[in-house]
Amino acid sequence: MKFELTILGSNSALPTSKRFPTAQILNVLERFFLIDCGEGTQIQLKRFRVPMSRINHIFISHLHGDHFFGLIGLISSFSLQGRINDLHIYAHSKLEKIIRFQLEILESKLSYNLIFHNIFGKEIQTLFEDEALTVESFPLRHGVMPCAGFLFKEKERPRHLIKDMLDFYQIPIKARHGIKMGDNYLTDDGDLIPNSKLTLEASKPRSYAFCTDTAYFPRIVPIINKVDLLYHEATFLKNDAKRAKSTYHSTAEQAAKIADEAKISRLLIGHFSARFHDLSGHLKEAQSVFKNTALAEDGCVFEIPLKSKK
Amino acid sequence: MKFELTILGSNSALPTSKRFPTAQILNVLERFFLIDCGEGTQIQLKRFRVPMSRINHIFISHLHGDHFFGLIGLISSFSLQGRINDLHIYAHSKLEKIIRFQLEILESKLSYNLIFHNIFGKEIQTLFEDEALTVESFPLRHGVMPCAGFLFKEKERPRHLIKDMLDFYQIPIKARHGIKMGDNYLTDDGDLIPNSKLTLEASKPRSYAFCTDTAYFPRIVPIINKVDLLYHEATFLKNDAKRAKSTYHSTAEQAAKIADEAKISRLLIGHFSARFHDLSGHLKEAQSVFKNTALAEDGCVFEIPLKSKK
Repeated sequence: MKFELTILGSNSALPTSKRFPTAQILNVLERFFLIDCGEGTQIQLKRFRVPMSRINHIFISHLHGDHFFGLIGLISSFSLQGRINDLHIYAHSKLEKIIRFQLEILESKLSYNLIFHNIFGKEIQTLFEDEALTVESFPLRHGVMPCAGFLFKEKERPRHLIKDMLDFYQIPIKARHGIKMGDNYLTDDGDLIPNSKLTLEASKPRSYAFCTDTAYFPRIVPIINKVDLLYHEATFLKNDAKRAKSTYHSTAEQAAKIADEAKISRLLIGHFSARFHDLSGHLKEAQSVFKNTALAEDGCVFEIPLKSKK
Repeated sequence: MKFELTILGSNSALPTSKRFPTAQILNVLERFFLIDCGEGTQIQLKRFRVPMSRINHIFISHLHGDHFFGLIGLISSFSLQGRINDLHIYAHSKLEKIIRFQLEILESKLSYNLIFHNIFGKEIQTLFEDEALTVESFPLRHGVMPCAGFLFKEKERPRHLIKDMLDFYQIPIKARHGIKMGDNYLTDDGDLIPNSKLTLEASKPRSYAFCTDTAYFPRIVPIINKVDLLYHEATFLKNDAKRAKSTYHSTAEQAAKIADEAKISRLLIGHFSARFHDLSGHLKEAQSVFKNTALAEDGCVFEIPLKSKK
């Protein structure tokens, strides 16, 4: 029942020898969602032992190169590996043009289907949905460049059956779905067994929000309200607030303010400017506003454990 | 007076966590020539502390992604860094289309001029020439994909002046060029000073040949004859010779045969298939044919020292 984020790259536009450009993998119940795909993402996937064949959905926040220049290489490698499964890419429509133009001019025929989904960018949009999870995009503020944040939300799960009790009352298979949904059970002898004796409450749905690149933009607060984990860019420190504003980026303090206002549980900051070798200033600045903050450095893994609703 | 090669990436199509795709830097007298530019090249340039602003010429052997997918990121980063100098790229003409299409659709205006030079691929072609060096391309054999090898050759240098002797005979500045070129010197008193008293012989011009990707292709032997350093791909081992042939790659033994036939001084092998973690088999196989062979692994540096002609 994993819900686990691995940071593949944490730097802003110019990579350093230690920090790759933006990319992350979210493992939700052993399905691996790739979020952004900066240059070198496929190398980081290998380094951090992510099972590449389990990536079927890739979400690209915006079309600055440090967020997608690794995509053409990953797409090509998937084909060299003989991939069969469809690959879904959620991005601004220009990305499809860029990728298809290259495949065409290089006469590359992929071994699988590449399916692009357009992010419109002006409103909240459901990009992906299955029985366990939804992924929505929402607009960030990054100057003239359309840029999307992503919200991953587990769905409410049915109650957990207590197997020993089902056996004890000899409850048939066909009745179990109803019990999971909260039904009581009437035995053949007419005894009513309350649902609370047969089930445990489901754990709380978990959630993760990804917000890069963006200026300080409080309009996102209600959208990411109370998420378990928030990644928010923190390219600069507060003494560079002017520069952050003019380049439509955030400071560590601003990232923490958003976290605080949205009452989230844990904040990760990243997308660090290449000029910072030591990131302790970012951490300290953010923690002074929002204590439960961590640096999202390459290779770090953050798990959201199962929690009861109470 | 450096002539030094740094390996930035040494793997074939699929990178591993330890070996990046193909890229090399040749430092000739502090000018840095980039040869191929696989994904992640800019990260490796930082890692191995190559002064990026000194790269003005990039040579791309062919248009398989593992040899050029790092180029768009490098071009973008140069612009973010405010580069002014022209950047020359020598490649198949399709590469210009791929790069310009992306820059156009992303509305990227570079801070410098990007100048593409077409490699025609069917014959030996001089790509670059200045007072000290020539760079030629020549065709390799890589199936239907046009693929170029590169030959870097220092030019013959004039003789070295012996400063103490020039001072001793009080030889004026205007006579020195002729002496460098081999002239004797006639003093005002009518004494003839032989050139051998005034100069030392110039060192031997150095040379480097880069050959990837290619099947075993003895036609290149006369072109790379007696180079000081040869990089030749060795994707496979000889027990995979069939596969090497069908994919237009070489085995370590075949790379060594080319080295032996061309009477070169030192062989580097690279472009290793991702399935080999341990490369000692490649080294052993090549050395059994051509002893002075080394593995061209990421981060390795190979210098060609100055040598006298005798």
